[in-house]
Amino acid sequence: MIKIAVLGYGTVGSGVVEVLSTNYEKITQRARQEIEVKYVLDLRDFPEDPVQEKIVHDYSVIAKDPEVSVIVETMGGVNPAYEFVKEALERGKSVCTSNKELVARHGAELLEIAKEKKVNFLFEASVGGGIPIIRPLNQSLTADEIQEITGILNGTTNYILTKMAREGVSFSKALKEAQEKGYAERNPEADVEGFDACRKIAILTSLAYGMQVDYEDIYTEGISNITDVDISYAREMGASIKLLGTGRKVGQKVYAMISPMLLNSDNPLFSVNDVFNAIFVRGNLLGDVMFYGAGAGKYPTASAVVSDVVDAVKHLGTNIMTIWSSQKLELADKGEVSRRFFVRVPSAQENKARELFGDIQEIDAGILGDFGFTTPFITEKEYEEKAKELNVRRMIRMDF
Amino acid sequence: MIKIAVLGYGTVGSGVVEVLSTNYEKITQRARQEIEVKYVLDLRDFPEDPVQEKIVHDYSVIAKDPEVSVIVETMGGVNPAYEFVKEALERGKSVCTSNKELVARHGAELLEIAKEKKVNFLFEASVGGGIPIIRPLNQSLTADEIQEITGILNGTTNYILTKMAREGVSFSKALKEAQEKGYAERNPEADVEGFDACRKIAILTSLAYGMQVDYEDIYTEGISNITDVDISYAREMGASIKLLGTGRKVGQKVYAMISPMLLNSDNPLFSVNDVFNAIFVRGNLLGDVMFYGAGAGKYPTASAVVSDVVDAVKHLGTNIMTIWSSQKLELADKGEVSRRFFVRVPSAQENKARELFGDIQEIDAGILGDFGFTTPFITEKEYEEKAKELNVRRMIRMDF
Repeated sequence: MIKIAVLGYGTVGSGVVEVLSTNYEKITQRARQEIEVKYVLDLRDFPEDPVQEKIVHDYSVIAKDPEVSVIVETMGGVNPAYEFVKEALERGKSVCTSNKELVARHGAELLEIAKEKKVNFLFEASVGGGIPIIRPLNQSLTADEIQEITGILNGTTNYILTKMAREGVSFSKALKEAQEKGYAERNPEADVEGFDACRKIAILTSLAYGMQVDYEDIYTEGISNITDVDISYAREMGASIKLLGTGRKVGQKVYAMISPMLLNSDNPLFSVNDVFNAIFVRGNLLGDVMFYGAGAGKYPTASAVVSDVVDAVKHLGTNIMTIWSSQKLELADKGEVSRRFFVRVPSAQENKARELFGDIQEIDAGILGDFGFTTPFITEKEYEEKAKELNVRRMIRMDF
Repeated sequence: MIKIAVLGYGTVGSGVVEVLSTNYEKITQRARQEIEVKYVLDLRDFPEDPVQEKIVHDYSVIAKDPEVSVIVETMGGVNPAYEFVKEALERGKSVCTSNKELVARHGAELLEIAKEKKVNFLFEASVGGGIPIIRPLNQSLTADEIQEITGILNGTTNYILTKMAREGVSFSKALKEAQEKGYAERNPEADVEGFDACRKIAILTSLAYGMQVDYEDIYTEGISNITDVDISYAREMGASIKLLGTGRKVGQKVYAMISPMLLNSDNPLFSVNDVFNAIFVRGNLLGDVMFYGAGAGKYPTASAVVSDVVDAVKHLGTNIMTIWSSQKLELADKGEVSRRFFVRVPSAQENKARELFGDIQEIDAGILGDFGFTTPFITEKEYEEKAKELNVRRMIRMDF
């Protein structure tokens, strides 16, 4: 019998308690022993809920109890999650977390402590909700040099973009509906400006390349500027607009970015719609693999946390995670990366655009007064220099 | 330094040797030690290849060498692979194999021996080539009851069906092109009749439900009867025809089947094209996840084998695989499963079809003399009884 504690009885924390009870038999068989929740830490009381008898308000009760060998952290935010997790690891307890902010900021250090203490710091649920990606990156894609890892990492923005593409509605209308359905927060900034996806790609890139990627260093562009006019152009190209997070090797460097991207149907991410997430990985010998599933939601996320708990229980006393070093990975300048760009300018600038970019391809979406085109393959730096001479209404990077 | 032996220097075996050398640094870092190929077992000699100095013709040299702690089996076929693998495990060596035939037939027994001997029997490459699916099933989807596992498990047939759908060509023409490109064998029976996919779904179903599924018990229907006329009907429905392998819980039983299936665009397998494979898993709390990638090919498959070698090396002395019991899983009769059916009969039988099936939906693909329709949801047994009274030209099961 293994005793665990859950920090935070919110959506994911209560989901973890529920998953452990609903799938008790299967989980016991997989973990090869029973798992019992001994404590749940929360500031609140839950008098109507049987969890009440396990509720404690003081973390030190949990930290000091030698019977607790695994701690689940689902509080979110960096403080006090960081202090709690660090203390747990130092006391020889394994930690399973869904907290992307914590992992992106302190992952390297916490992994290092876990390794020293021969315990585990696991965070499958911090990226892609229920999609297994952290463990496959660590344990399955071990024979390959990762050349690229790219994902649709945020369900809210994918829902909004899917809605805009299917129904031709505006960004604000699609956002409003996402809020009504509970897919978007009342303050949607973290999602729509790409900050959530940015923390996730920081984690994936750090793991894939084994060094610390600070999310503040990642160029991040959200979707709040995307309009129904842009969507019309995408449709005209047979393309879809997705908010992608990418970490990619370019020569000896790695570059990372969050931005809207035009994809055509050759890309397996093209048809990942609604609130689904997917993560695409390219290995030098393996080729392309993709992992797809529910990127958020109470039960998918809780299921991923519990799969970590099972792994922690199976590996008490053995550290299993590959580490990423706290040495900072110097990211390549996005200006160095070559691709095609979709650009819209006032139609009066058609000739100027042709002069500047040379071999362009016009896209006619029937928008009066607008000239839309795609550039040849050029570096982003070249693009920026030329674009200065135009009144660019929109630029969207292309993946084809 | 860990010494390994490779049994069979064919496509996958030589790929394994190459992957270990090409990605030496990354692999050493992941395995936390160097991995050296000490022997390669093959009946042939390779005088032009540096591997020649490692070639042995007698398996007992390898089996008896205590320095060899991991054995890679890429010979294929059941004999002598089974005897070799069994001896290796009994002598305390871990085995990593790409041999689906061996795993489907003797997996339960070999896993049991590995467990007793505290070594590992790993077979990531036996299903889905480079796609990580065996390890995720064992180590990531551990918090869930698996309700369904369905996959496009054979690249050759998927290539043929994609070609037929895109270009409107006949089965035989698409097969011929697959053979010219090296995607299909000269004797394509194992692929086109579904036998290859059948072994793979037997492995996945055994793992998902923890009991032995004998592939001889699985109803298996290939694609050699699918015509361009069927494809026209599929297009008319906005559907695609895929060869699917399925293991699914129905009540307290599991049923398993290989057959062509009509999918619409709501299914994430809908747009898995060409030689790609994908495996979809539904958990009771996790919801749907999908794993996508190259289902075959020298390097993807070899990469998957090497990821097993890395895992075996990291876990010397510890058994990590969940076992499936050799107790036979009694499969549900396919007659009990309900779904819709697409059916084509001579147009003279339209009225009879309407009488028999009631609420049908006509599909008009402009085929003279043909009446195409979809049935309401009925069990396969009901369908079969009614179909006896018609001259059915084609029946294809539907997933929507």
